[in-house]
Amino acid sequence: MTLETRSLAKSHGGVQGVYTHESVVCGVPMTFAVFVPPHEAGAKLPVLWFLSGLTCTHANVMDKGEYRRVAAELGLIIVCPDTSPRGQGVADAPDNWKLGCGAGFYVDATEAPWSAHYKMKSYIADELPRVIAENFPADMTRQSITGHSMGGHGALTLALRHPGKFKSVSAFAPIANPMTADWSRPALEAYLGTDEKTLRAHDAVALIEDGARVPELLIDQGTADRFLNDGLRPWLLESACKQANIPLTLRMQEGYDHSYHFISTFMEDHLRWHVARLSPASSRT
Amino acid sequence: MTLETRSLAKSHGGVQGVYTHESVVCGVPMTFAVFVPPHEAGAKLPVLWFLSGLTCTHANVMDKGEYRRVAAELGLIIVCPDTSPRGQGVADAPDNWKLGCGAGFYVDATEAPWSAHYKMKSYIADELPRVIAENFPADMTRQSITGHSMGGHGALTLALRHPGKFKSVSAFAPIANPMTADWSRPALEAYLGTDEKTLRAHDAVALIEDGARVPELLIDQGTADRFLNDGLRPWLLESACKQANIPLTLRMQEGYDHSYHFISTFMEDHLRWHVARLSPASSRT
Repeated sequence: MTLETRSLAKSHGGVQGVYTHESVVCGVPMTFAVFVPPHEAGAKLPVLWFLSGLTCTHANVMDKGEYRRVAAELGLIIVCPDTSPRGQGVADAPDNWKLGCGAGFYVDATEAPWSAHYKMKSYIADELPRVIAENFPADMTRQSITGHSMGGHGALTLALRHPGKFKSVSAFAPIANPMTADWSRPALEAYLGTDEKTLRAHDAVALIEDGARVPELLIDQGTADRFLNDGLRPWLLESACKQANIPLTLRMQEGYDHSYHFISTFMEDHLRWHVARLSPASSRT
Repeated sequence: MTLETRSLAKSHGGVQGVYTHESVVCGVPMTFAVFVPPHEAGAKLPVLWFLSGLTCTHANVMDKGEYRRVAAELGLIIVCPDTSPRGQGVADAPDNWKLGCGAGFYVDATEAPWSAHYKMKSYIADELPRVIAENFPADMTRQSITGHSMGGHGALTLALRHPGKFKSVSAFAPIANPMTADWSRPALEAYLGTDEKTLRAHDAVALIEDGARVPELLIDQGTADRFLNDGLRPWLLESACKQANIPLTLRMQEGYDHSYHFISTFMEDHLRWHVARLSPASSRT
């Protein structure tokens, strides 16, 4: 698997890189960002995945997420994938920011025309981890995952669908129950069809209702988030976790919106929370 | 002076805003960013100016500078102006990134066509401080200034030209001696003409040689900066400061480039350094 280095910059003592590779599952070149903290030669470091939200690429959180200072301190690799396939031959809905490029929703599309390239579930869960393992000083037995908005949905559903793969999962303003939100249901139907059982396998609340489990959850949500009531609705996740006895820390952050100002403010808390669960001595999982 | 609020977001406990106003000296609307940290009602807070480099607007350091966490902790207002006038009727050199829009060089142009709108010295030194004083909880007796590259040149020359106006001055990879660098001399000549005396009044090294003083200087410079030898040349500043007995802390930062990865890594050091010199108890100035 050949990796093309797009850029490298020393940052907070580590290296922030941007890379492109030919994705087999997506069938197009895919770009992603990796921060490698300062480390001893030969060391293998834990990995935190950050899945981004609608309209984003790998670059938004890389530019505005303010994760490098703390990741450098904690010795944590941060991987920031793109949110969809892009480029020549990739289906898109240019007038709809909730479908197509920038809106892959972390599922493997089965419906035309999306099924040709939109395989973000397999890409994030299987293909890109192999690329990371082969090219970076990563200990793939110590992975955690987080994300924002659509990427929060991605983090939650991937962790729920792959028990044990991630030592911990958190989210910033996730789409908790996308199959029942006007904001997200159309995209899920476009990619996966209308079968309820299929949709439930890609929805955090439904997955929990149907028996999927994670050890615990940390969710931050801004109270001034304009998508709170229509799209995000963390109280649905709270209710599902309560029913399922999943320990959930849901922090309603007064006055914060949906932007990277919200994410960057609480990024440090999430990184420290994950590292506590990624340490070799941790017996949480 | 009417201020139009372009955006407001809670961030690290404070508020990051973007504002537009009609600049009298530039003759066009100008946009700038201000971060106001959390504070007691009625408090008046010290101000740090960050002047940006070539091609930048107010937004680059706002997005990538990572100043808010520490500014919130320290109770410091951060003001990030644009780097030139822009818009209808403003002269530009669209094929030259070192002249015109995004390249105001913090001087008051005297030469046509630039003299109509390019008045960045008066804008930063006089007009925008009045706007800040009128609209924000700022203690204008406690201002400091920093900047990057062209903005480092701006910070140094403004501080040298206005003794006592800024309690402290620092810079990230400043253009130390712009009148002798191919990188910057053409723009200075375009704005100010070729008279050496005039040019020397807008050049940090020349100003120091000609007797201007600041109490001390903090400069960070990346060793992997591709503009180091042709454009920046901090050793010329080091030599001038040594001759003039100005205490200079010049830190050559191994492996860092010219990007915001370099700036964000050392931003915290600069904020803490300035705040130590902005505190009411400080007797340094």
